[in-house]
Amino acid sequence: MIGGGFMGRAHSNAWMKVTKFFDLPYDVNLKVVAGDKNRLEKFADNWGFEEVSYDWRETVKRDDIDIVDIVTPTYMHAQMAIEAAKNGKHIICEKPCALTYDECMEMAKAAKEAGVVSYLNHNYRRVPAVAFAKQLVEDGRLGDILSWHGQYFQDWLLNPDMPCGWQMQNEYAGGGALYDLGSHSVDLARFLVGEPVSVTSLHRTFIEERPLPNKEGKGVVDVDDAAYMLLEFEGKTVGSIEVSRFACGNKNANSFAVYGTKGAIRFQFQRMNELEFLDYTQPVSEQGYRTILCTEYDHPYLKAWWPSGHIIGFEHTFVNAFADVFSAIHDGAEITPNFEDGASIIRVLEASKKSAKENRRVFVNEII
Amino acid sequence: MIGGGFMGRAHSNAWMKVTKFFDLPYDVNLKVVAGDKNRLEKFADNWGFEEVSYDWRETVKRDDIDIVDIVTPTYMHAQMAIEAAKNGKHIICEKPCALTYDECMEMAKAAKEAGVVSYLNHNYRRVPAVAFAKQLVEDGRLGDILSWHGQYFQDWLLNPDMPCGWQMQNEYAGGGALYDLGSHSVDLARFLVGEPVSVTSLHRTFIEERPLPNKEGKGVVDVDDAAYMLLEFEGKTVGSIEVSRFACGNKNANSFAVYGTKGAIRFQFQRMNELEFLDYTQPVSEQGYRTILCTEYDHPYLKAWWPSGHIIGFEHTFVNAFADVFSAIHDGAEITPNFEDGASIIRVLEASKKSAKENRRVFVNEII
Amino acid sequence: MIGGGFMGRAHSNAWMKVTKFFDLPYDVNLKVVAGDKNRLEKFADNWGFEEVSYDWRETVKRDDIDIVDIVTPTYMHAQMAIEAAKNGKHIICEKPCALTYDECMEMAKAAKEAGVVSYLNHNYRRVPAVAFAKQLVEDGRLGDILSWHGQYFQDWLLNPDMPCGWQMQNEYAGGGALYDLGSHSVDLARFLVGEPVSVTSLHRTFIEERPLPNKEGKGVVDVDDAAYMLLEFEGKTVGSIEVSRFACGNKNANSFAVYGTKGAIRFQFQRMNELEFLDYTQPVSEQGYRTILCTEYDHPYLKAWWPSGHIIGFEHTFVNAFADVFSAIHDGAEITPNFEDGASIIRVLEASKKSAKENRRVFVNEII
Amino acid sequence: MIGGGFMGRAHSNAWMKVTKFFDLPYDVNLKVVAGDKNRLEKFADNWGFEEVSYDWRETVKRDDIDIVDIVTPTYMHAQMAIEAAKNGKHIICEKPCALTYDECMEMAKAAKEAGVVSYLNHNYRRVPAVAFAKQLVEDGRLGDILSWHGQYFQDWLLNPDMPCGWQMQNEYAGGGALYDLGSHSVDLARFLVGEPVSVTSLHRTFIEERPLPNKEGKGVVDVDDAAYMLLEFEGKTVGSIEVSRFACGNKNANSFAVYGTKGAIRFQFQRMNELEFLDYTQPVSEQGYRTILCTEYDHPYLKAWWPSGHIIGFEHTFVNAFADVFSAIHDGAEITPNFEDGASIIRVLEASKKSAKENRRVFVNEII
Repeated sequence: MIGGGFMGRAHSNAWMKVTKFFDLPYDVNLKVVAGDKNRLEKFADNWGFEEVSYDWRETVKRDDIDIVDIVTPTYMHAQMAIEAAKNGKHIICEKPCALTYDECMEMAKAAKEAGVVSYLNHNYRRVPAVAFAKQLVEDGRLGDILSWHGQYFQDWLLNPDMPCGWQMQNEYAGGGALYDLGSHSVDLARFLVGEPVSVTSLHRTFIEERPLPNKEGKGVVDVDDAAYMLLEFEGKTVGSIEVSRFACGNKNANSFAVYGTKGAIRFQFQRMNELEFLDYTQPVSEQGYRTILCTEYDHPYLKAWWPSGHIIGFEHTFVNAFADVFSAIHDGAEITPNFEDGASIIRVLEASKKSAKENRRVFVNEII
Repeated sequence: MIGGGFMGRAHSNAWMKVTKFFDLPYDVNLKVVAGDKNRLEKFADNWGFEEVSYDWRETVKRDDIDIVDIVTPTYMHAQMAIEAAKNGKHIICEKPCALTYDECMEMAKAAKEAGVVSYLNHNYRRVPAVAFAKQLVEDGRLGDILSWHGQYFQDWLLNPDMPCGWQMQNEYAGGGALYDLGSHSVDLARFLVGEPVSVTSLHRTFIEERPLPNKEGKGVVDVDDAAYMLLEFEGKTVGSIEVSRFACGNKNANSFAVYGTKGAIRFQFQRMNELEFLDYTQPVSEQGYRTILCTEYDHPYLKAWWPSGHIIGFEHTFVNAFADVFSAIHDGAEITPNFEDGASIIRVLEASKKSAKENRRVFVNEII
Repeated sequence: MIGGGFMGRAHSNAWMKVTKFFDLPYDVNLKVVAGDKNRLEKFADNWGFEEVSYDWRETVKRDDIDIVDIVTPTYMHAQMAIEAAKNGKHIICEKPCALTYDECMEMAKAAKEAGVVSYLNHNYRRVPAVAFAKQLVEDGRLGDILSWHGQYFQDWLLNPDMPCGWQMQNEYAGGGALYDLGSHSVDLARFLVGEPVSVTSLHRTFIEERPLPNKEGKGVVDVDDAAYMLLEFEGKTVGSIEVSRFACGNKNANSFAVYGTKGAIRFQFQRMNELEFLDYTQPVSEQGYRTILCTEYDHPYLKAWWPSGHIIGFEHTFVNAFADVFSAIHDGAEITPNFEDGASIIRVLEASKKSAKENRRVFVNEII
Repeated sequence: MIGGGFMGRAHSNAWMKVTKFFDLPYDVNLKVVAGDKNRLEKFADNWGFEEVSYDWRETVKRDDIDIVDIVTPTYMHAQMAIEAAKNGKHIICEKPCALTYDECMEMAKAAKEAGVVSYLNHNYRRVPAVAFAKQLVEDGRLGDILSWHGQYFQDWLLNPDMPCGWQMQNEYAGGGALYDLGSHSVDLARFLVGEPVSVTSLHRTFIEERPLPNKEGKGVVDVDDAAYMLLEFEGKTVGSIEVSRFACGNKNANSFAVYGTKGAIRFQFQRMNELEFLDYTQPVSEQGYRTILCTEYDHPYLKAWWPSGHIIGFEHTFVNAFADVFSAIHDGAEITPNFEDGASIIRVLEASKKSAKENRRVFVNEII
C-alpha cells in the first residue's frame, strides 16, 4: 500500500476483513506500507504491515508483492499506477483516477499492456443497495431510462478557517467538489444509466482564499466549491449532477434518483442499507416508493455479512470491492470500474470544466 | 346543529362543501344553530344559519329540520340524541358517543325505534388512506390479521397552566385521553381488525391539579392523561392502544399499524394522504413499506376532490362523512359507525377503566 | 370568473370559503362565470354563480363586477387581463402569466395604468410552510443564501396515449413542463432567494407525437417534457431547477431545498404541512433536519384554520391567497406575485428556451 | 470463546477489530474456541483462534486465558459463567443473561465474589445514537421522563416451516420474543428511563406446533411469539414494550421513543446512525423532530471510526462494547450492563410471564 491517511485506514481494515467474510482462494499478507508520513510506523504497526518503506518506487518492484494499493493524493496516482503496472503488479487505486483524461489513458494503457487487473475504487458501486439497483435496471424493472439525478453534498468547507489543503488546489486535485464528489456521481451514472455525451455546467467557488495549512498567510482556492452539470447520455436519456462542499447538514450525502418508463429508484448513502423502488407497472392506487432494506441473503454481497436487518456501514463497501478484485485476479477477468472507466469519468469532468469556463454545452468527445 | 365550538366550525364547513363536491340528491339548508354561547349569533352569521336558538329541545322538534347535528360536550350527547330520535330526526353526533355503555345503548335503541339514521363522527374512518386500508384488509391483502398497534398522541396538556376544563372532568367527558383519543383508536381497531374481547390497561394522570377555567383556585383532574391498553380480539388477534396528551412533539398524531400474515399497513394522521403498505407476498429482496399517496381517482372519496398529488386535509374527512350520511339517508341504509358502534367502543373504554382500577384483565362482556 | 375547469373549481371553492375563515371587510358575490364550455351552466349552478356568460368581453365591462378572475389557458391571459384592467377591474390570473415576457409587460403596464390590483396565482407561496420558510430566510436564519435546488415533478405524460392537448402546444401554452411547472419553481426561487441573472438549460421532449384530442391522427408535441436549468442569481448564489412530467411516482411533487451559510430548508408539496429546517448554528452533534409541522397558531395563515396538528391541503393555498388579495385591495397595497413578477418569471423561462436552443448560457437581460 | 454461531462470528470480528480502532492497553490473542460443533475447526481457522476445544470446563481453567466470552444458547450461560468466575476469568456473556432471576443472581454473585468484570452483551446500548440519547437524558434535555415506548419486531417466525429450534423452547430459551427481544428492550428502558416496578402483560403464541429441526414430526412451541407489556417505573413514569417475531416487514426493528416534559427522542435500529430528537423548549413554531446523524467526532465512540457521514453498522456495537470492557478491566471499574443488570432484566421478564399467566398486574418484587 502506498499512502496512509483516512483511506489507508479504510483499505487496511478491508484487507483485514476480506478473507474472514468472503471465501477466497487467496490469503492476504500486508507486506509493506510506503509513504513519507512520520506516523507511518505507527500505522504499519497498528494494521500489521510487515515493513515500512519511504521509497515507493522500490516497493512496487519487489517480487513478494502481488497487489499495489494506491491511496495517495490524486496527482500521484498516474505515475505510481504506471510504475506498478510496468512491474506486473495488480493495482487498486483510490479515486478520482488522475488529474486528466490523458493521464488516465496512460494508466489504462499501462495496465492493459502489462495484463494486470486495475481497479479504481469508486466504492459506492459496491453498496449492496446500489448493486441491487443495478440488477433492477438490468432486469428491465425501470423500463427505458429517462433521467438521472445525482447529488453529492458535503458541508465541511462552509467553515472559512478550513485550510487551503491539496484538495483545494487544481494542481494536486484536478478539481474541487467536481473531482472529489463528482467523480463518484459520474461513475454511478455510467454504472446505472450509460455514457454521457454532453455536459453543460456551472461551477462556483464560494470562498476564494483560505488560510494556508502552515498558517502563514492565505492561499487561493483555484477549484470549484460546488459544481452543477446537465448531462445528455446516449439515446434520449438526460440528467443532472450537483456536487457541493457547501450544503449544510449534508455530511456525506451521496444520493441519486433514476426515472424510467416502468419504474424509479432513489438512494441516499447516509441510509445506505435502503433502496427506494417505485414499480410503475403496479395499479396506480397501489404505487408508492418502497423502502427496501437491502440486508437479505438474496441481496448482493449480503451472503458474506450479517442476518437480515443487521445493517452494514461505509467500510463494508471496501471489503466487498476487494473480494471482487480477488475474484477478478483469480479468474483473469475484468473488473469495473477500472482505469478505462476512470478515463471516461475524468473526461466528463474535464468537459464540465471546459463548459463552465466557456459558458456553453461541451460534447465529451471534444476532450481528447 | 347544536353547539358551536371548533367542531361546530368543522361541521359547518362540511355542510357548506358537501353538495359542491359530491353529487347528492339533497340540498343543504342550515336552518338553526342552537346553543348557549354568547358568540352564537356571530357564528350563525358567518356560516349562514338562518336562525339561532337558545333552546335545543325546541329546535329538535321543528318540522323544518331533517338532521340534527350534535357538536356539544360528551355528557350532553345522550339526551340530545334521544330527544332528536324521538322527534324522528336523523342524527349526526360528535364522538365520543356518550359517557357510558348504558347511555350509548339507549341512544342506539332510540335511533332504532325511530328508524332514523344515526352517524357517530369518528371521522378518521373517512380519511381516504384509511378507507383504502380497509379495502386492502377486505381484499385479503394482509392475510390473517395478527396484531393492531394504535397510538394517538397529543401534547397540549404538558402545559401545567392549561385550565381544568370539561375534558378533564370525568363527569362531563367520561375519561381523559382514553375517551377523547382512545375512542378514535378503538373505532379504527374495530373498523380494520375486529371486536375486542378483553382489555388490560394502565392509566396515568401526570398532573392532578390544574387552575380552574375561571382562575379561581384549582380543580382536580379526575381523568387519565395517558391510557395504555392491551387488547385481545376475537380469534387470535392481539393488539395495543396507547393514547396520551403528554407526548411532546405530537400535535394530532393518530397512528396505527396492522400486521397480518401476508402484509402490513401503517398510517399516521399528520401525513393523512399517505398509507404505508408492505406486501409480504413479494420476493423478500423486493419487500419494503411502500408509501402510497392516496390521492388517485381510484382511491376512496377522491373522485370528489382534486387531481392526483393535490392533497387534502383534516376538514375533508367531515365532508366525506356527510356525503355518506346523505347516501345512507337516501338509500334507507345503515351507516357506520353509528350509535351501536358507539356503544361497543364505550364498552371497551369502560372495560379499560375497570382494568386500570382493578389491575387485571377485564373482559369486555363484564361491562353490562 | 372566466373559465371553469379544474382551476375554476379550485377558485370557486376558495371564493366560497375565504369569508368564512378570514375576517374580511368584503363580501363575495359570484356574479358571472364566463366561458364557452357546454357544461358551464352546471358549473355555475353548483358554485352559485348568479349568471353565465358566453362573451367574456361583455362580462369584464359590467359595473357590478369588482374582480375578474382568469382561469383560462395561458394564451388567453394577456388579452383578458388587459381588457379587465382597462375596465378598472382588479384581476386574479392563473399562472403562468402569459406566453411571452412582452405580453406580461403589457399586462403589468395595463394594471399599473388602471391602478388595479393584479395577482398572479403562483399559489405555492401561500402554503403556510413556504410562507414560514420565507420568514426564516428574512430573519437571517439561513445566513447568506448559497444555493437553490428546485424540482417539480409529475408523471402524467408517461402515458403515450395522453392526447396532445393545449398544454403540449407552444402556441397555447408557451412551453411544456417549463411553463406549467417551471414557472412555479422560478416564482419560489425569486420569492426565497432572489433574481436570476443567467440561465443554462437542457430541455427534452421524450414523446414527440401524441394522438390529437379528437382522436383523428397525431399531433406534434412542440414543447419540452422535461426542462433542467442551472441558474446564477444576483450575488454569489447559484441554483438549479428541474421540472418534468415524466418522473414516475411523482404526482405533484413540487419540492425545493435552500442552502445558506447558517441553515438550510427543504420542502415537498405532497407533505405541504411540513417544513424541514436545519439550524447550522447549533452544536454539530445536535444538528439535524427538523420536521416542523406548520399547523401552529403562530405559523402564517394558520390562525384562520384548524387546531394544531389538523392539517390542511392543496385548496387552502387558494383561500389564503384570496384573503391576501382582499387585504391588498382594501389597503390599496401591492400584492405579490403580480404581473410584474409574472414578467420576470416568464423572462427567465424565455431565457431557458433560448439557452436550450443555442446550447449556451443566456443572461436574463438578453430577453427584451 | 465458548460457542461459534452467528454471535461467535460477530464477537470474533469484534476481537479482531477492537485493538485496531481503539487505543487500548491490551493486545488480543484468540487462544481457544470451545464448543461441540463439527465446523468448529473451520471457524477457528477463519478467525485465527490458536486452538479448538471440545471441553469448555477445561478451557475456562486454563492459565493463559484472561477473558471467557460466552456465545452459547441461553440455558448454558449460568453454569459457564459461574465456572469461569470461579476460575477468576473476566466474562463476556451474550444476552439474555440466563433462564431465571435466580440463575442470574448466582452469576452475579459468582462474578462479585471472584472480583471479575462481567459484561452482559446488550449491545444496543453501544449504538452511538443510543449512547448519545443517554447523554441527552442525563443532561436533562428531556426534562422529567414521562413515558417509554419500546418495540422490537422481527418477522422470521411467520414462516410456519421454520423449525422448532431451541429459541422456541422454554427450557432452553426461557421465553420467546420476550426473552430474545424483550430483554434488549427492558435493558434499554432501564438504561434510559429507570427501574420497572410493575408489569402487566399479554403474550401470544400464533403458531403452536412447528416441524422439529430433524424433520421427524412436530414440536410444541411453548414460548410466546409476541409479548406486550405495560410498565410502571419508579416515580410517575409509565411505558410499554411490544416484541414480536410475527411483524412482517420488520427484520431487526428495535425501536423506542421516550417522552419527557422538555423533549423527546426516537430511535430505530435499522437506521441506527440516526437519532430523532425533539426539543420542546424551542418556540412552538420551530419545534420538530430533528434527525441527527450520529457520526460526528463528538458523538460517543465516533472518534474511533470514520469521518462524519460515513456510517457504521451492526457489528460496530460489539467493538464499542469490547473496548469498554477493556477499559473496565484496566481501570478495575464496573461496566454495565453486567450480571446484576441481567438479573434485573430477567426479573422483569419473569414478572411478565407471571402477569400473562395470571391476567393481572404483577409487581417486579413479587419475583424472588
